[in-house]
Amino acid sequence: MTRRTIENFGFRIGSMPKGKRNAISDVPGVTVGHSTIDTRDHKTGVTVIMPCPDNMFQNKLTASVHILNGFGKSLGTVQVQELGTLESPIALTNTLNVGLVHDALVSYMVTRCEREEVPLFSFNPVVGECNDCHLNHIRERAVKEEHVLEAIRTASADYDQGDVGAGKGTICYGLKGGIGSASRIIRLGDTEYHLGILVQSNFGRTEDLTIAGQEIGKKLVSRIRPSETDKGSIISVLATDLPLSSRQIHRVLKRLGIGLGRTGSHVGNGSGDIMIGFTTANRIPDKKTPDDPFVPVQILQENLMDTVFRAAIEAEEEAVLNSLAAADAVTGYQGYQVHALSELI
Amino acid sequence: MTRRTIENFGFRIGSMPKGKRNAISDVPGVTVGHSTIDTRDHKTGVTVIMPCPDNMFQNKLTASVHILNGFGKSLGTVQVQELGTLESPIALTNTLNVGLVHDALVSYMVTRCEREEVPLFSFNPVVGECNDCHLNHIRERAVKEEHVLEAIRTASADYDQGDVGAGKGTICYGLKGGIGSASRIIRLGDTEYHLGILVQSNFGRTEDLTIAGQEIGKKLVSRIRPSETDKGSIISVLATDLPLSSRQIHRVLKRLGIGLGRTGSHVGNGSGDIMIGFTTANRIPDKKTPDDPFVPVQILQENLMDTVFRAAIEAEEEAVLNSLAAADAVTGYQGYQVHALSELI
Amino acid sequence: MTRRTIENFGFRIGSMPKGKRNAISDVPGVTVGHSTIDTRDHKTGVTVIMPCPDNMFQNKLTASVHILNGFGKSLGTVQVQELGTLESPIALTNTLNVGLVHDALVSYMVTRCEREEVPLFSFNPVVGECNDCHLNHIRERAVKEEHVLEAIRTASADYDQGDVGAGKGTICYGLKGGIGSASRIIRLGDTEYHLGILVQSNFGRTEDLTIAGQEIGKKLVSRIRPSETDKGSIISVLATDLPLSSRQIHRVLKRLGIGLGRTGSHVGNGSGDIMIGFTTANRIPDKKTPDDPFVPVQILQENLMDTVFRAAIEAEEEAVLNSLAAADAVTGYQGYQVHALSELI
Amino acid sequence: MTRRTIENFGFRIGSMPKGKRNAISDVPGVTVGHSTIDTRDHKTGVTVIMPCPDNMFQNKLTASVHILNGFGKSLGTVQVQELGTLESPIALTNTLNVGLVHDALVSYMVTRCEREEVPLFSFNPVVGECNDCHLNHIRERAVKEEHVLEAIRTASADYDQGDVGAGKGTICYGLKGGIGSASRIIRLGDTEYHLGILVQSNFGRTEDLTIAGQEIGKKLVSRIRPSETDKGSIISVLATDLPLSSRQIHRVLKRLGIGLGRTGSHVGNGSGDIMIGFTTANRIPDKKTPDDPFVPVQILQENLMDTVFRAAIEAEEEAVLNSLAAADAVTGYQGYQVHALSELI
Repeated sequence: MTRRTIENFGFRIGSMPKGKRNAISDVPGVTVGHSTIDTRDHKTGVTVIMPCPDNMFQNKLTASVHILNGFGKSLGTVQVQELGTLESPIALTNTLNVGLVHDALVSYMVTRCEREEVPLFSFNPVVGECNDCHLNHIRERAVKEEHVLEAIRTASADYDQGDVGAGKGTICYGLKGGIGSASRIIRLGDTEYHLGILVQSNFGRTEDLTIAGQEIGKKLVSRIRPSETDKGSIISVLATDLPLSSRQIHRVLKRLGIGLGRTGSHVGNGSGDIMIGFTTANRIPDKKTPDDPFVPVQILQENLMDTVFRAAIEAEEEAVLNSLAAADAVTGYQGYQVHALSELI
Repeated sequence: MTRRTIENFGFRIGSMPKGKRNAISDVPGVTVGHSTIDTRDHKTGVTVIMPCPDNMFQNKLTASVHILNGFGKSLGTVQVQELGTLESPIALTNTLNVGLVHDALVSYMVTRCEREEVPLFSFNPVVGECNDCHLNHIRERAVKEEHVLEAIRTASADYDQGDVGAGKGTICYGLKGGIGSASRIIRLGDTEYHLGILVQSNFGRTEDLTIAGQEIGKKLVSRIRPSETDKGSIISVLATDLPLSSRQIHRVLKRLGIGLGRTGSHVGNGSGDIMIGFTTANRIPDKKTPDDPFVPVQILQENLMDTVFRAAIEAEEEAVLNSLAAADAVTGYQGYQVHALSELI
Repeated sequence: MTRRTIENFGFRIGSMPKGKRNAISDVPGVTVGHSTIDTRDHKTGVTVIMPCPDNMFQNKLTASVHILNGFGKSLGTVQVQELGTLESPIALTNTLNVGLVHDALVSYMVTRCEREEVPLFSFNPVVGECNDCHLNHIRERAVKEEHVLEAIRTASADYDQGDVGAGKGTICYGLKGGIGSASRIIRLGDTEYHLGILVQSNFGRTEDLTIAGQEIGKKLVSRIRPSETDKGSIISVLATDLPLSSRQIHRVLKRLGIGLGRTGSHVGNGSGDIMIGFTTANRIPDKKTPDDPFVPVQILQENLMDTVFRAAIEAEEEAVLNSLAAADAVTGYQGYQVHALSELI
Repeated sequence: MTRRTIENFGFRIGSMPKGKRNAISDVPGVTVGHSTIDTRDHKTGVTVIMPCPDNMFQNKLTASVHILNGFGKSLGTVQVQELGTLESPIALTNTLNVGLVHDALVSYMVTRCEREEVPLFSFNPVVGECNDCHLNHIRERAVKEEHVLEAIRTASADYDQGDVGAGKGTICYGLKGGIGSASRIIRLGDTEYHLGILVQSNFGRTEDLTIAGQEIGKKLVSRIRPSETDKGSIISVLATDLPLSSRQIHRVLKRLGIGLGRTGSHVGNGSGDIMIGFTTANRIPDKKTPDDPFVPVQILQENLMDTVFRAAIEAEEEAVLNSLAAADAVTGYQGYQVHALSELI
């Protein structure tokens, strides 16, 4: 699979080194799968981020959520914030399908835990969403359990970007957006750690689009049907293998808005801007033997956080731009057409 | 319908005057409906609080959410916190069914808005939950869309309490809990305002149960199979017709823990203690004409909040106790038996 | 020093074992000092909790803050919430003196760090407060730097309670309140951990006062000038030697309201109810050598938190009551008289 | 007074119309005063924003606070967040002087309320700070009560920017920063509203400095002693005459980070990035007659917030740049020299 990235158009975002795939899957163990629905009326789907290959309910991941703008319907955030742990794949889909996708994640985990003989009576799925109602007949809720299971089943370190999965029907700065990724390498002493981002992009006014500091959007306004309000949502998923606490992950997630802002976002009223982050270090067992009540974890010295912030901001900015770079033009529900950046630049 | 209340057992909770029904439906316009699933394996269901008779999406309610303990799966809280508005019925159900119930609320509102010619492309359902896995074969997810629609259809100012709807399978202090309500009247000048609570109770160690200051639980421990951990969740829904801002509603919701504590709660780690509140005053239109950009609202003078706090705390304490008082004993999944308070006192 | 406790009046609070001193200083290394101002017009002072004997700026304590009701002027909470660390003694005083006390803590730490050759360019003092304006001519701000330094200098594991230090002028449930403490022992495996509370009590309506479930306040209303509004504030400081993360400490602090509620509190609008907590385990160095970027910490298994919650709630309830039990009657500014519980019970 | 702005250097920030003064004082009633300490060892001072000419304690302003990064010592945030009101001038100063400045605001308000016969027993000063320890011998705490009173006394709609008041000793992107302002006009129907920002700038790595999308900082690194870490803090004060609720002001404040990001900020670990905002509409009386328990307020339709967000982001970006544009070079404590942007561009 070759796919276009923003670098193919001559733009370099930030200065830190990138991971091998420039993707969230540069974090060892993290994989991504899609299920794309591509009919005349429906341009939508599911994208799933699998945070680890083993059972994440039995052995949870240290995690956090940040709500930059809560005009959105993401599910499962309450428990992640309270306990600082993620016990579910993270699924992305369209706004009106979050309930069904939530239920499908329950199905998946009930089945998996039965098979793996892990007792499960409660479970907190995490689902993000964007509203793809321009290209997708959203009220018909085309996404079903089978799509979630397909996305999980096909998850891989090599995954597609652009107009696929939960990004099939999304629009970003008036252009075809969708799924985008980027990653950065953080060197501490002799060790390399990875930080990766995956976004579902569906926000932004056309005239605000900024690429590597250039006001590209202003030139596009007359060439496409421009988006004139900054609404629609952007879901950002951050993964790292750096040992952080949930408090520290939250601090990192708060910086992602800086990356969004550099692409031109004003964090519009109608844009649900939700950040979800986890580390594959510091795993937290669901239950331990009672004779060992403590879980040892490592946290980063606080004054070393700046490099992590920088990596996250760079990767966020680039992931949004890569979602634009990778997407092809799409014509959807009622003939609605959305151009691709690659057609215009 | 007659139902037992904690007063029938000789306990008086608090000192403020009660509403006519001593229920959340004392707030004019608020109704409640149930759908109960009562089979050998399944003791569960749905309870819906309808905040107003008219279209709550078109004309939203000022609202807030408080997360006392976020080890829970309630859905829809993010948007309520951001915008300070509720645009959905509030549905309660079991933990693993929240996704399906969320989806059913989407169905309901899509259909309703089409019928009422209200444009709808996005919608934020609110769903609370308790884990009823002792009495209910929860992994089979018995609740379907039809149950949600039935609960909405049958909503009334006179509604059942105890082991009904979403309370069919819940356990509180080792006794049969379920749905409970109470209300208080707040007099300001010549006007009477109402504050009502509805709870889905599913928490508490038996030995901690305290009724009107009496340590009843200690006497029950040897008479029933006691609950020995404070887990399971309690969802509290608060309604009022007093004009408050979302910030003020949040302040009121933060006091509900005091009412829980008086029944013996320690807000256990495993108990998702979630509070959702709204006022039927200060309605917020989804869209207004552009020539009138402002919405006039009334807020209560802050130094008059104490009476509201007191009303809320009393009603919360009594609503939990009424859920115990009203419930009958239930034998459920795999023959699990739970006694009723009325059998023991 | 002998002092009265609520047990001396025949009340037993909770069921968990107490520490040797039943005080926050049961946590090894924690000490408390007072400076009391007792003139005709001024009944006020300073109480300081020293979280450790060594330099807390150089080697910070894992900590958190919970704002149950933010109608208060406590200082230093922002940084504790962000970084999850405490780097200062915690000083308590009257409302209008928090600025001067903050400045005095800067003086103390600047001097100490110069002496100990610890570089210091920034510093986050933590100051809590209650409004003692009935007994104290508060607008004259009687507290000066010397009082803060005296409280620090005299800090000891054995310290006075009642109408001393920052508690000299406070009123609780219409009675003389002040400084109160209690502690509980938490056994995990073969190890005993300690959790201690110190409060500065200045809240509550007389008729609400509840001691061990008995409505004592209702009997006192006619015997004293009762407090008729629940205002004034309560600052609670929690210490433990149990290894917790800042997120976990925050969860514990959120439960302290349950303890307050059991004494009769409604968390009145005008009562700044602020909780500050720290653990002496999991110390965080201000700077480490760059070749070791991580700090190892231990966190408690989440499902073992219930015992900690219970200990905290019991200690909070008892600490408030001990502040009443220990205090003597005081006559202050303009002849205002406040009775002691010991005179009435 | 003429002062340089970033426009004088040929940069245009954003596209919305500016207020007459391009300053926070374009909001009617808002004034600003400085007291500057400029000795060999001390480059520091106080800047005060007066939110209204009348008594702000008696008639409070609807307000909010946002903590983008809480590694800072700002005081008074807790009560603003709880009650959604501001009752104090906002004072800015250096990090180690916040306590004294807090106390000076108490002095000011006690005196003023006595003179104006407004009863005052409690008062919540708001103080922001930056660490000016490079240019200022900060541990000596040069700021005294007289400086605060001078800043209040001299407050005016026409005020100086750059290296004055609390900005005398601050450094931004390795250049001399300080006080900066900007404003935007928001047209709704036939009415013009104003939104103004004042910043105390003290953050940023030199190489990150970005002006109107141009990476100016990269060119400056070799010409000055560059700042190599993003630390130090930025306090942003926002004022508007648009009727907003405290919740809405909080939403606006959350967007200010976008403006900071456009100047190059990564919201560094050591930078306390605090936002304080208020509206001069929707005043809230301290006490009302008991027969009228409600306060009428106007809130903006939520879907009109985007223009406010945009205005705030533009003004924030420009205010930071204006602080650089206006400042002159300063040589301070121990001969430390900081260049001005005007010398280099």
